[in-house]
Amino acid sequence: MNSAEIRKRILAENDECASRLKSGFDESGTLVVDIVSSPGAGKTSLLEETSRRLSQELGMGALVGDIATEMDAERLRSANLPAHQIVTGGACHLDARMVEEGLQHCAFLPVDLLFLENVGNLVCPASYALGEDFKVVLLSVTEGEDKPFKYPAIFSKAKVAVITKVDLLPQLSFDLERVEEQIRTLCRDVRILRVSAWSGEGMEEWCRLMQQEQARKRQTVGAN
Amino acid sequence: MNSAEIRKRILAENDECASRLKSGFDESGTLVVDIVSSPGAGKTSLLEETSRRLSQELGMGALVGDIATEMDAERLRSANLPAHQIVTGGACHLDARMVEEGLQHCAFLPVDLLFLENVGNLVCPASYALGEDFKVVLLSVTEGEDKPFKYPAIFSKAKVAVITKVDLLPQLSFDLERVEEQIRTLCRDVRILRVSAWSGEGMEEWCRLMQQEQARKRQTVGAN
Repeated sequence: MNSAEIRKRILAENDECASRLKSGFDESGTLVVDIVSSPGAGKTSLLEETSRRLSQELGMGALVGDIATEMDAERLRSANLPAHQIVTGGACHLDARMVEEGLQHCAFLPVDLLFLENVGNLVCPASYALGEDFKVVLLSVTEGEDKPFKYPAIFSKAKVAVITKVDLLPQLSFDLERVEEQIRTLCRDVRILRVSAWSGEGMEEWCRLMQQEQARKRQTVGAN
Repeated sequence: MNSAEIRKRILAENDECASRLKSGFDESGTLVVDIVSSPGAGKTSLLEETSRRLSQELGMGALVGDIATEMDAERLRSANLPAHQIVTGGACHLDARMVEEGLQHCAFLPVDLLFLENVGNLVCPASYALGEDFKVVLLSVTEGEDKPFKYPAIFSKAKVAVITKVDLLPQLSFDLERVEEQIRTLCRDVRILRVSAWSGEGMEEWCRLMQQEQARKRQTVGAN
């Protein structure tokens, strides 16, 4: 088997496991959101702030992927978001099997809304389905305007793109319109939000979106 | 073959190719520096500014890895740094074979100092030798203080760690000392620089380091 064939087999096995996960999440009416970004774009900060604003209204939890350390899960638990850390060792992304295994350790389940906070990486997480309803990609304004076209796979697949750290815009030369145009070129129907977890800008819109998507999921499940 | 065995074989083949590259670079006295960071930490900006400051004194060139687009090589060429873009397709890192193949397209060779600007990713580039003299890891102050311990492999292997975008420090809560302590815990002999390509802070020290390392390489080659 050459490396292209190996990769194909790995992804096929992953897809099979992800379908299994998806069925389980659909049955329990859990909205599952895979959060993807570069290291340090603000995934954990977004989830901390989401927990502070939404935990009275939605039962939430998180599975958090990292190469090493339990730091992010600890941060989330401190913000009252029940979380289990998946330490991937060498792997630069979560895969469906890791999620399946991680779910065994989540005493907080079932929940209305489960976040999968992926490993900080804009490349490989795009290729792995995890049983999620949709992927959200974060891009911080400090990363520069050229990123969507340089990492097209994830920006093509994400249903929601969150531009983070917008409180820093006055200090930077960052053309928001240009970036949003790139993102829309890659994915016509994407929803783009401008957010700062630090100042709170855009957090209300983000939380409302999560609530709407959760309500829609619940209806779909109720209809079956 | 299971996936651990496959990975081992891939890395062994890569090491073999990297040794071949290293011999060639040693013969020509070329200092080769592999630059690794998250997307948007400032690899291209650092090289642009290095070219502006050093191109009168050193013959330089770059091989630039990206999933998609020629944008970074174009930026470098505009800053008078001869550059060839390696478009990796799906791959989230450069490997030695891509470098070997890329070198065939570099009419600007031989040079005194060759930069390998890796794909924006803190994970997989740590595992792949490219025939370089050493790796440099960049961490921007906007990425947060927890990154060295969360991405230990690259911070353990890099000979030089460059903290970038330090001009933004007044706008952030970022504990430089805490981060530098983490980096030193992972790699005792690491050289740490604080740099802003935008304001110029730390650029002189970075350029001096490149010159010293190049001179040392030349001496080693002369001694053989």
